[in-house]
Amino acid sequence: MSIQRIKGREIEGRIAGLYRAGMEDFVTEAVEMLDLDFDGIAGDVHGGPTRRTGGREPWYKRGTEIRNERQLSLLAIDELQATAEVLGIPEVKPEWIGGNVLVEGIPNFTHLPPRTLLFFESGLTLKVDGDNHPCRAAGRGIVRHVEGREDIARGFVSAAKNRRGIVAWVEKPGRVTVGDGFRAQIPEQWIYP
Amino acid sequence: MSIQRIKGREIEGRIAGLYRAGMEDFVTEAVEMLDLDFDGIAGDVHGGPTRRTGGREPWYKRGTEIRNERQLSLLAIDELQATAEVLGIPEVKPEWIGGNVLVEGIPNFTHLPPRTLLFFESGLTLKVDGDNHPCRAAGRGIVRHVEGREDIARGFVSAAKNRRGIVAWVEKPGRVTVGDGFRAQIPEQWIYP
Repeated sequence: MSIQRIKGREIEGRIAGLYRAGMEDFVTEAVEMLDLDFDGIAGDVHGGPTRRTGGREPWYKRGTEIRNERQLSLLAIDELQATAEVLGIPEVKPEWIGGNVLVEGIPNFTHLPPRTLLFFESGLTLKVDGDNHPCRAAGRGIVRHVEGREDIARGFVSAAKNRRGIVAWVEKPGRVTVGDGFRAQIPEQWIYP
Repeated sequence: MSIQRIKGREIEGRIAGLYRAGMEDFVTEAVEMLDLDFDGIAGDVHGGPTRRTGGREPWYKRGTEIRNERQLSLLAIDELQATAEVLGIPEVKPEWIGGNVLVEGIPNFTHLPPRTLLFFESGLTLKVDGDNHPCRAAGRGIVRHVEGREDIARGFVSAAKNRRGIVAWVEKPGRVTVGDGFRAQIPEQWIYP
């Protein structure tokens, strides 16, 4: 068998911001710390051991209960800034598009592969499901804050392509605080032939 | 950004065998069908929403409770046969090494990437955590059935390298029966730069 396997490695990053939602809306607000258990963020619209499917899973009837691999949305400072530049606006705030964790220090953050583990100083571990895909609902979250730019609802989908961050779930509970460091443990990779 | 992304695709396979363990041992026995819920196989040693860590996770203290991404062990007929040939024995039975699902029809089965979805005819969906790593405990499971070959406990680790199947969890509950077909939906892939 000639499948080339690329060794794993570790990269260090830092938490630049933390945010949480309520139960009504995906929009988040800034907080100083988050307590995460196996359900994700308690009382958050994206928390829980299972979730209901939507347009992202066209192979299921809408509303199907599946195991929740999207407890948390993680975003990178440099990728948000690149998205804002493409849209021609000063900034895209993590809160506007439902981010929970804003990170810095990991290049090509959205490309962290599935199965990557994120170990935080506190003992929390997040496991990466994979890259998140930009949708118009998130684009509309930006439109609310940028006057006269209704085009962003649709424009966000292409502007944020391959830079909309990742989704993850809690592998091991713990508390995180803004400023905490973490290690991304990238697994061995290969391309299925 | 110049990260090459390889398109996803679908491959069809078939269930050639089903097996379950009790609560005492990882060794499994053949069954005709399995009912799987969000905890995996009810009453199976590897079931449950969380599990305790062991030697596979040297970054945790042994016995740490983490989310269970290893509810099921899936094996491929051709890979088991290749392992048996390297060991110089007639066969390696799935039961001996704790397999739960034996599949056929998916080439390079162990290389199905993390985040692959397996859709079964019944409505069950399994989500692939990734490749399983051969260990001496599984090797000892083979030794019990092959007289005078204590060397296999250690030899299995290299003989089964990159062909020890995958581990997965239940994304959507359902029942499976021997002979059922399934589709492997392989996601877009890339190598983190």
